[in-house]
Amino acid sequence: MYTENQVTGDMSALMVIFGGTGDLTNRKLIPALYNLIYDHRLPKHFAVAAVGRRDMDHEQYRKVIFEQLKKYSRNEIDQRLWEKLSCLIYYFQLNFTEKTGYERLNTFLSKLDDTYQTHGNRLFYLAVAPEFFETIVMNLHNNKMAVETNDSWKRLVIEKPFGKDLKTARLLNEKLREVFREDDIYRIDHYLGKEMIQNIMVLRFCNLVFESLWSNKYIDNIQISLAEKHGIGSRAGYYEQSGAMRDMVQNHLLQIVSLIAMEAPINLTSDAIKTEKLKVLNSIETFSSESLKNNVIFGQYGRGVIDGYPVPGYREEASVKDNSNTETFIAMKFHINNFRWAGTPFYVRTGKRMGVNAAEIVIQFKSMPDVLYFSNDAEQEPNLLVIKIQPNVGVFFQFNTKDFHMENEVISTKMDTSHTSGEQGNTPEAYEKLILDVIKGDSTLFSSWDEVEASWTIADRIIEYGRQKRLKLPNYDAGSMGPVLSFELLARDCRKWWNI
Amino acid sequence: MYTENQVTGDMSALMVIFGGTGDLTNRKLIPALYNLIYDHRLPKHFAVAAVGRRDMDHEQYRKVIFEQLKKYSRNEIDQRLWEKLSCLIYYFQLNFTEKTGYERLNTFLSKLDDTYQTHGNRLFYLAVAPEFFETIVMNLHNNKMAVETNDSWKRLVIEKPFGKDLKTARLLNEKLREVFREDDIYRIDHYLGKEMIQNIMVLRFCNLVFESLWSNKYIDNIQISLAEKHGIGSRAGYYEQSGAMRDMVQNHLLQIVSLIAMEAPINLTSDAIKTEKLKVLNSIETFSSESLKNNVIFGQYGRGVIDGYPVPGYREEASVKDNSNTETFIAMKFHINNFRWAGTPFYVRTGKRMGVNAAEIVIQFKSMPDVLYFSNDAEQEPNLLVIKIQPNVGVFFQFNTKDFHMENEVISTKMDTSHTSGEQGNTPEAYEKLILDVIKGDSTLFSSWDEVEASWTIADRIIEYGRQKRLKLPNYDAGSMGPVLSFELLARDCRKWWNI
Repeated sequence: MYTENQVTGDMSALMVIFGGTGDLTNRKLIPALYNLIYDHRLPKHFAVAAVGRRDMDHEQYRKVIFEQLKKYSRNEIDQRLWEKLSCLIYYFQLNFTEKTGYERLNTFLSKLDDTYQTHGNRLFYLAVAPEFFETIVMNLHNNKMAVETNDSWKRLVIEKPFGKDLKTARLLNEKLREVFREDDIYRIDHYLGKEMIQNIMVLRFCNLVFESLWSNKYIDNIQISLAEKHGIGSRAGYYEQSGAMRDMVQNHLLQIVSLIAMEAPINLTSDAIKTEKLKVLNSIETFSSESLKNNVIFGQYGRGVIDGYPVPGYREEASVKDNSNTETFIAMKFHINNFRWAGTPFYVRTGKRMGVNAAEIVIQFKSMPDVLYFSNDAEQEPNLLVIKIQPNVGVFFQFNTKDFHMENEVISTKMDTSHTSGEQGNTPEAYEKLILDVIKGDSTLFSSWDEVEASWTIADRIIEYGRQKRLKLPNYDAGSMGPVLSFELLARDCRKWWNI
Repeated sequence: MYTENQVTGDMSALMVIFGGTGDLTNRKLIPALYNLIYDHRLPKHFAVAAVGRRDMDHEQYRKVIFEQLKKYSRNEIDQRLWEKLSCLIYYFQLNFTEKTGYERLNTFLSKLDDTYQTHGNRLFYLAVAPEFFETIVMNLHNNKMAVETNDSWKRLVIEKPFGKDLKTARLLNEKLREVFREDDIYRIDHYLGKEMIQNIMVLRFCNLVFESLWSNKYIDNIQISLAEKHGIGSRAGYYEQSGAMRDMVQNHLLQIVSLIAMEAPINLTSDAIKTEKLKVLNSIETFSSESLKNNVIFGQYGRGVIDGYPVPGYREEASVKDNSNTETFIAMKFHINNFRWAGTPFYVRTGKRMGVNAAEIVIQFKSMPDVLYFSNDAEQEPNLLVIKIQPNVGVFFQFNTKDFHMENEVISTKMDTSHTSGEQGNTPEAYEKLILDVIKGDSTLFSSWDEVEASWTIADRIIEYGRQKRLKLPNYDAGSMGPVLSFELLARDCRKWWNI
């Protein structure tokens, strides 16, 4: 475990961003670097080489990203701080497929390395479309740019999608592994950087009250909802290939499931934690044809109304085929077949163009027996623990108290520590945390190959089922909470989705 | 179980207050009646006969109590409502020891009974000094005023102190029982009418999360503090005889212990609940000489400062002997020797002239093992559930979350539903609730003789120990949280009093 002092003190890194003019760099990476320098959390020896196809010099690039930073940063930009950061940022023009360019890049990086005393530590960040992953990595390899020495590291950060099914993921991984060790491959899942996702383990393992109740003995069911109001924007090219299953379930949602359901690790090392998370993924029931039919619901949004404004259906979005069967919503029920969870169903759902923006985990505890206060047909509200991920961040707890205006009547009471994210302006954002973790060499919040493999194994079976199934789409209106079938999935079990 | 409709509908009662000009009547009973009429909760057929020694007519009496009501009511008095209430209130002059007066009183009550159609239902409320209890009750008896018929009831409400030890309590009880059935004797403990005291059972038995953890397996210790800033005021005559033990522990404090520790009753009837509470009182360890010496701390306040103002010591208060050994503070540690609680100590304390006004129950859960986040000597804050009785009313829960500004640091977070009592103006006050309960015939919130007997058995042993012990008093300053010995009582066990 590293302490903050080690980060801001001895650490050094040269961050090489492939895709320096891309969306991710503008929206996430540069704002994250700005926040890190604002918080005095950047390593002392640090520089950035942004690699892109466009022709620009350093100053032009800095101007471009400054404009973007002003647009995407939630905070006012301090001019002095920006100057301090911008003089660490360099631009390098490169066509990713142009082999000879990498030699020039290497020379350039070595110069930066000297100037900034980054000791040969290089963080290669692939903020590019997946078709370039292999090309870039093989070129790094051919130019010996990924060779670790005794006193320097070379690490690769790779954004999703990591393959589009188990087979392609395996092929990609094999290519990466020809160049980088597994320990040096950081498969980013930005959801894992979010405050409340990181908090799951602390909530569970630092609170006797929660940990003691964390099993099928006390928990009736667990619900995970990742609902988004926005549609696919300009990302039809990606989304048509991906759908909700590849975009949200295979990665973010299964990662959350594994954090919620894992056993206590033997210590807090990345290895120990991943061992336990992997066990969860491997304990998720293998869907039979029957359970696929009963327990997996696909959806696609039609026209509807969001925040009072009419929005088009998915098939009407730019660059989407008008008979597209891509799912923009998925809901599933499954069991985790181990001693802790057998019998306690997990209900998960995620969708675009839903009625609310809300990522949250609901732990519904079992009901009390229908005696005493609940003996007279009194409706019983169960205890709920809700972990709110976004846009609200915090913990919510629902319990029962006495209604003092009625004789022996019970009402439910809510305790809520949650705040709108951004309200406490200095909460580290996912990307700040994740970039620092790579520099520190802490891969806890990144997906290991084993996890990716296990997730694709689960996802593939569901995707294949979806492909064969004749879906009547669209089947939910934009602005609703998904198809009726999703509500029936729980109603059948006499349960309901909690909208907290 | 009665519903609200039954109360305001069919019920009828003639309330006879002995001590109609006394402090309790002014401060509590008349304001409670006003609030009941305000809330439309008075029985349809209802009247009050206030019995006192002073010579007044009805109108004079109504004027006197109106002035007092304006002083003690928290709300503005609505003139129209007061007139509606005051024409139900009558005054009857009586010297309590004057036998012949009771016959006149009976005639007067019968007339009221006719006028208000109260069907012979009489609630005799003894708001008088304890030396009159027996006299009044025997006179009611001799004049056949306490005779129940098939269609009418006669109930006795008696305020503390119920005896000054087990022997005198037994004698008093025998006298009362010559006249009233046990079921018709309502020994009031106004603490039991308080919102959060009534809430204890609901919190425990309507929440799986709490009930599942409610035992020595998960609870490290339980603390009950009834701390008051005020001194004894003008009540030296009473307090010199009583002390903290008789004033607070024998009744309120042991009642709270029994509600916190009881098993689930078989139903919500008064009998079923009292059966379980009594089992708790009878399971409290019998103090050995050794445990008395180690686990009981007496205190008396000396001079000090409260809210910035100097206040006298107890021995300097009006009508207190200057060598008085009366305790104004007591702290105790004890165990409840049953399967649920063996090994989990209860720490209780109560005192006058303390630094805060705070009646609260702290459930301290066990700590997590010193692994994972607590492996590096990290100080661990335990989970706490706090039931706040007064002046704040509500539930407070402390748990651990991640500190997002430090790597793997854990901080404690507080959820608090509590509000200052009176903030939610329409929360029924203890006396409103208790008066209605007597009329309804629900004795759940009153102490049964068995409970009183068990409490005195515990109290007597401690009082006797205090009498024999040579105490160096005063031993705490007014405005402090009690004697050093009280802190040592917990420090010895590596625990501390939580001040929430």
